[in-house]
Amino acid sequence: MKTLQVDLGARAYPIYIGSGLLDDSALLRRHIQSQQVMVVTNTTIAPLYLDRVLNLLQGLHVETVVLPDGEQYKTLDSVTRIFDHLLQKKFSRNAGLIALGGGVIGDMGGFAAACYQRGISFIQIPTTLLAQVDSSVGGKTGVNHPLGKNMIGAFYQPQCVIADMAVLATLDDRQLSAGLAEVIKYGLIRDPDFFSWLERHCNDLLQRDSQALAYAVERSCWNKAQVVAADEMETGVRATLNLGHTFGHAIETGMGYGSYLHGEAVAIGTCLAADLSRRQGWLDADAVSRIERIFKAARLPIVPPSQLDSKRFMELMAVDKKNVDGLIRLILLKSIGAATLPVSVEKKLLEMTLSDYGG
Amino acid sequence: MKTLQVDLGARAYPIYIGSGLLDDSALLRRHIQSQQVMVVTNTTIAPLYLDRVLNLLQGLHVETVVLPDGEQYKTLDSVTRIFDHLLQKKFSRNAGLIALGGGVIGDMGGFAAACYQRGISFIQIPTTLLAQVDSSVGGKTGVNHPLGKNMIGAFYQPQCVIADMAVLATLDDRQLSAGLAEVIKYGLIRDPDFFSWLERHCNDLLQRDSQALAYAVERSCWNKAQVVAADEMETGVRATLNLGHTFGHAIETGMGYGSYLHGEAVAIGTCLAADLSRRQGWLDADAVSRIERIFKAARLPIVPPSQLDSKRFMELMAVDKKNVDGLIRLILLKSIGAATLPVSVEKKLLEMTLSDYGG
Repeated sequence: MKTLQVDLGARAYPIYIGSGLLDDSALLRRHIQSQQVMVVTNTTIAPLYLDRVLNLLQGLHVETVVLPDGEQYKTLDSVTRIFDHLLQKKFSRNAGLIALGGGVIGDMGGFAAACYQRGISFIQIPTTLLAQVDSSVGGKTGVNHPLGKNMIGAFYQPQCVIADMAVLATLDDRQLSAGLAEVIKYGLIRDPDFFSWLERHCNDLLQRDSQALAYAVERSCWNKAQVVAADEMETGVRATLNLGHTFGHAIETGMGYGSYLHGEAVAIGTCLAADLSRRQGWLDADAVSRIERIFKAARLPIVPPSQLDSKRFMELMAVDKKNVDGLIRLILLKSIGAATLPVSVEKKLLEMTLSDYGG
Repeated sequence: MKTLQVDLGARAYPIYIGSGLLDDSALLRRHIQSQQVMVVTNTTIAPLYLDRVLNLLQGLHVETVVLPDGEQYKTLDSVTRIFDHLLQKKFSRNAGLIALGGGVIGDMGGFAAACYQRGISFIQIPTTLLAQVDSSVGGKTGVNHPLGKNMIGAFYQPQCVIADMAVLATLDDRQLSAGLAEVIKYGLIRDPDFFSWLERHCNDLLQRDSQALAYAVERSCWNKAQVVAADEMETGVRATLNLGHTFGHAIETGMGYGSYLHGEAVAIGTCLAADLSRRQGWLDADAVSRIERIFKAARLPIVPPSQLDSKRFMELMAVDKKNVDGLIRLILLKSIGAATLPVSVEKKLLEMTLSDYGG
């Protein structure tokens, strides 16, 4: 087992990465202070892993909420179901919450923990590659709104993150690829050596080579932990983690939550950001090709859905957390391994990228 | 104008107390950094003060949400209306929100600000005595749940609090009395001289003597600011501000939100807490009489509704933020001017208080 620390002073916490951690009762219970524990999971994960987690919690008062699976359920209504259950079971402010699932469960479980009685402690047990390398780390929690992704939420850090590599065995191929989109992102924004490694090892990852996966998760979490420690509340460098996300969120919102996986939308969005970076004169055509190539190799889409024309794209992007006074701002690339802070781009360039790609 | 500071390091902010502050554009605009400002208010306050606040904001992009008035509307649904409006108007993360109203508006506006895009800045303009002396200061925001008061929320501090004494002129008598319940609380938990002053000046306050009101608001805010600065997240002494609130919340929840004003329920709850403190051997009968007398003088109820028997009371109190692992804990009094931290009390004593008072 490897342990990475997210250095956030009084809110610092460990990320545990290893195989078989879902059988390690001592590890989990070290981070539980209460008799009352609520496990939040979904209908896909419950039959696979819920019993194993409950086994680790014997002797405690444990309750579970099983939500439907999918981005379309990442809503205030779902979070309300968690609140209802916590209150029906008379859970106190010292209770603990465990989010067992992918990014959707982690984001909602974390947000429920942030708001229940103005904050109870919680633990992330991510069960998808995407959640392990990205969403479970750093304390961004929340839900979607019909008009925008992740528009309602809180910064709220977990007690720990437990990433069991063994769960990746049950992940379907589409989810695995979606996770790789965020892995590739770390290479692009700040870790060019890792990007080169990914170019060489993409196939090993798709084949689920356990050593390659463990390395990719560790290096991704290491990058994420560094960025989050430097800028917890996203007043600066943390925004670079949003490479491709403004376009990506527009695709997810515009096509209906759940039709594109988050990682798929981010893959497309990153290719659009790369194209726009080229139009700004920052990336050369070769770099753009390498970027498109690695996403294709990871079996991810790189072209936006034809249903979204550039006008609709612009409309959807007008709501984004990086915008200032309603002006669109994006993360772009200066080179492979170096991202910009949020920048405003000429509307004309943006429309050219959108119409060229949208076809 | 008096300025009190809430000392919370990076989150410190001023409370401005004075007459005519709703005409002071410079004061308000000093705390607004964005072009986009959302004013949240209710149907009672809008006709009285909304135009005056909008006048202060000329030249900015200002939008308003007018919610129905009353504790029964302090719900996630109302907060969702604020989110909808913010998104429809494409408000960015640098936007500002102004909560113009009583405690319900302040709590919901603050919670909406805490969660919109994971946090935008907000300003409290409290328009009731209760909001000026208590709920607008200290960053407790949130909404009710059918099973418990203030069960969903966040600690989230405003940029400033603007308490215009002039608005107290339009407050109805019942609201004025309700506010006095929280004023009296400060005397009881930590300021015995203020309690004595209130015994002497209760009538002046009911007559809306402007000097007396200004003094009561200042001294209350000073007490609140001290307690909040010492313990922002309520891990210790801040819980003493909850004197009478466990009983009070049970009354509000049990009778249906809005049937008792918060201050009325707290007045009853404080008398119950005083009785229980006497049964613990801490308060003498004379002190209990003084407490009952001042609430009566302030035209507040001191006996719980007969519909709530002690069994139902116990059930409602089983959900409270001070409870640990489901065990009821209360704030009691050691003397007039000295509160305990949360204590567990013998179930038998608690039932005796409830049945003696409930009749």
